[in-house]
Amino acid sequence: MSISLPKAFNEFDEARQKGFIDVKELKEKGKNIVGTYCVFTPWEIILAADAIPISLCAMSDEPIPEAEKHLPRNLCPLIKSSYGFAITDTCPYFYFSDLIVGETTCDGKKKMYEYMNDIKPVHVMQLPQTTIGDDSYNLWRNEMVVLKERIEKEFNVEITDENLKQAIKARNEERRMLKKFYELGTLCPPPITGLEILKVLYGATFKTDKNEQNQTIDNMIKSVMEEYNNGVRKVSEDAPRILITGCPTGGATEKVIQIIEENGGAVVCFENCTGVKGNDTLVNEDIDPIDALTDKYLNVACSCISPNDNRIELLDRLVDEYKVDGVVDIVLQACHTYNVETYRIKKFLNENKNIPYMSIETDYSKSDIGQLQTRISAFIEML
Amino acid sequence: MSISLPKAFNEFDEARQKGFIDVKELKEKGKNIVGTYCVFTPWEIILAADAIPISLCAMSDEPIPEAEKHLPRNLCPLIKSSYGFAITDTCPYFYFSDLIVGETTCDGKKKMYEYMNDIKPVHVMQLPQTTIGDDSYNLWRNEMVVLKERIEKEFNVEITDENLKQAIKARNEERRMLKKFYELGTLCPPPITGLEILKVLYGATFKTDKNEQNQTIDNMIKSVMEEYNNGVRKVSEDAPRILITGCPTGGATEKVIQIIEENGGAVVCFENCTGVKGNDTLVNEDIDPIDALTDKYLNVACSCISPNDNRIELLDRLVDEYKVDGVVDIVLQACHTYNVETYRIKKFLNENKNIPYMSIETDYSKSDIGQLQTRISAFIEML
Repeated sequence: MSISLPKAFNEFDEARQKGFIDVKELKEKGKNIVGTYCVFTPWEIILAADAIPISLCAMSDEPIPEAEKHLPRNLCPLIKSSYGFAITDTCPYFYFSDLIVGETTCDGKKKMYEYMNDIKPVHVMQLPQTTIGDDSYNLWRNEMVVLKERIEKEFNVEITDENLKQAIKARNEERRMLKKFYELGTLCPPPITGLEILKVLYGATFKTDKNEQNQTIDNMIKSVMEEYNNGVRKVSEDAPRILITGCPTGGATEKVIQIIEENGGAVVCFENCTGVKGNDTLVNEDIDPIDALTDKYLNVACSCISPNDNRIELLDRLVDEYKVDGVVDIVLQACHTYNVETYRIKKFLNENKNIPYMSIETDYSKSDIGQLQTRISAFIEML
Repeated sequence: MSISLPKAFNEFDEARQKGFIDVKELKEKGKNIVGTYCVFTPWEIILAADAIPISLCAMSDEPIPEAEKHLPRNLCPLIKSSYGFAITDTCPYFYFSDLIVGETTCDGKKKMYEYMNDIKPVHVMQLPQTTIGDDSYNLWRNEMVVLKERIEKEFNVEITDENLKQAIKARNEERRMLKKFYELGTLCPPPITGLEILKVLYGATFKTDKNEQNQTIDNMIKSVMEEYNNGVRKVSEDAPRILITGCPTGGATEKVIQIIEENGGAVVCFENCTGVKGNDTLVNEDIDPIDALTDKYLNVACSCISPNDNRIELLDRLVDEYKVDGVVDIVLQACHTYNVETYRIKKFLNENKNIPYMSIETDYSKSDIGQLQTRISAFIEML
């Protein structure tokens, strides 16, 4: 059962590059591609139309200077990078996308989509600003229906309840497997590093064949545990256990994870969109599929929701489950909602969980690596 | 009919200070006070409960350092200043407020209200992110009803349709008078300076006796026109006519208006919340009052709405009506929505209206005055 682990991890590490070819081939076979930017997007509706959803959230600083010709410099790098790839037409995933689906999550994305709409058709879902009240639920439910109708029209297909239910099952299966994988982080010491966890989670967003992905991850888990049970230890038992929270991580922001682990910390959990936030809760398979999707995607613990009590509940539980020693909150530069929430999160962790906390505001450049080194090493030393 | 103009303008200039005493007296008489932060707030519903709405939008940099203990530095000064006054309890208007009404307009305000709720009861209205579609209308209409019910409960009053209709009439009357006043700016040359227009508009937000306010402004207009018709010219006929757009102005941001006028420009129009944005459209007096309020307050041309076509339409018209030579867009630091919109506004003005445009990102400090001098004088010279 054992597979070569470095090879398996590399496969996910290179998933973004490899995925280009997969998408090109799928496109040539006549498949429709839908680009998305958020865990709020109900991929199930796209899958139910036999289309391929792909994540376009950009994690590289390369196209940012071009984006800044239209967008302010003082804006989240994820938004600038995503828009930059779009206007420079340098992202094959964007290039092959037939439709973009966005949501009115944060101010930056909401306003950026207005400009992106000049490049590709963008369907923006109206996300309620709170989860409280029937109005929010009804608005979001109707947005599910509107998206379904838009996709049906755009791709000239009919999406049946049966299609939706199958897609829900498939996505739940994928989530279960990803969860099984990242929950390796609950072990003391963890059998894999945080950087390895991240590379698999991030790489998975570029894989289009989810059956193969599930199989690969399952094999990987078995190999990891085989080694671990044979006494192999990659991470020291004494390494302070770090939970990452905040904005999406991957690509350029891997620097933070790298610095934490180079300085003796072990990242055991990603409470963000790349990790737990999207995968922790499954979609209910036993009720009306549109209701089930509404419920799932209204309760994403994102800071754009006000109040965002779901995040507190999630952190409360994860800190215990992963036996966390310290929390690092990664805020992408100028992300107001996560930035404002740092005060509440710090207070909650310090006072209610008695856990040290630090927040880091960073972007996709390498210019702050020295400063991050200093701050992070001091934090880990303190734990 | 003539009144002493410097005295009349001073009265508005000092309105913020004087208003403190009025509010204290009203409070002692048992009146309920409702603090608000946005032109999206339907003041009519507050007035219909015989309560006093007051604007708490803060325009001073004084309390910002205290606010930055909870809020990020990289956030709009209006939000930080407003929150700073609240936590330091240094704003009598906030102190006397029984209830705060906010809206989910921008990310910064939305998240700040979560913290403000720990200081005073804050009722947050769920503003839709777009004006398009029945869902937006229905959501916003329901929020009007929810606010009405909250105020009824909070102050133990019943708000009848008749109360609402009277309040709508009164507010329309106030808007008509303010509009009549700021439309003095359409004259060539304008009979008053932009700074004078601003001081009256900003000062009016602190006046609680609106009948008296209407009378004072009416007298002021008559005096101004009497002088003007007698040949008095305060502003040169050759002064380039500037329209201000963007974020709210007043208090600390008066610096921009001052610099424009010191450098030979004449500010003739304020297309922002302090000026035209809230007063241009009246509330329909002939339909169901809740419907009328929904319609009015859904169509505020604010950048937090996506897409914000109303702003383009408004600018299109105002540039002609005020015979504008150049547009200055004031963006408060880190205001993502107005900042992202600058690209669209510049394009529209340059290409469709053939009008020069400059955007200025500023805060409540004095540190950028030198830089503003340089940029603004170069812009005006070019006109």
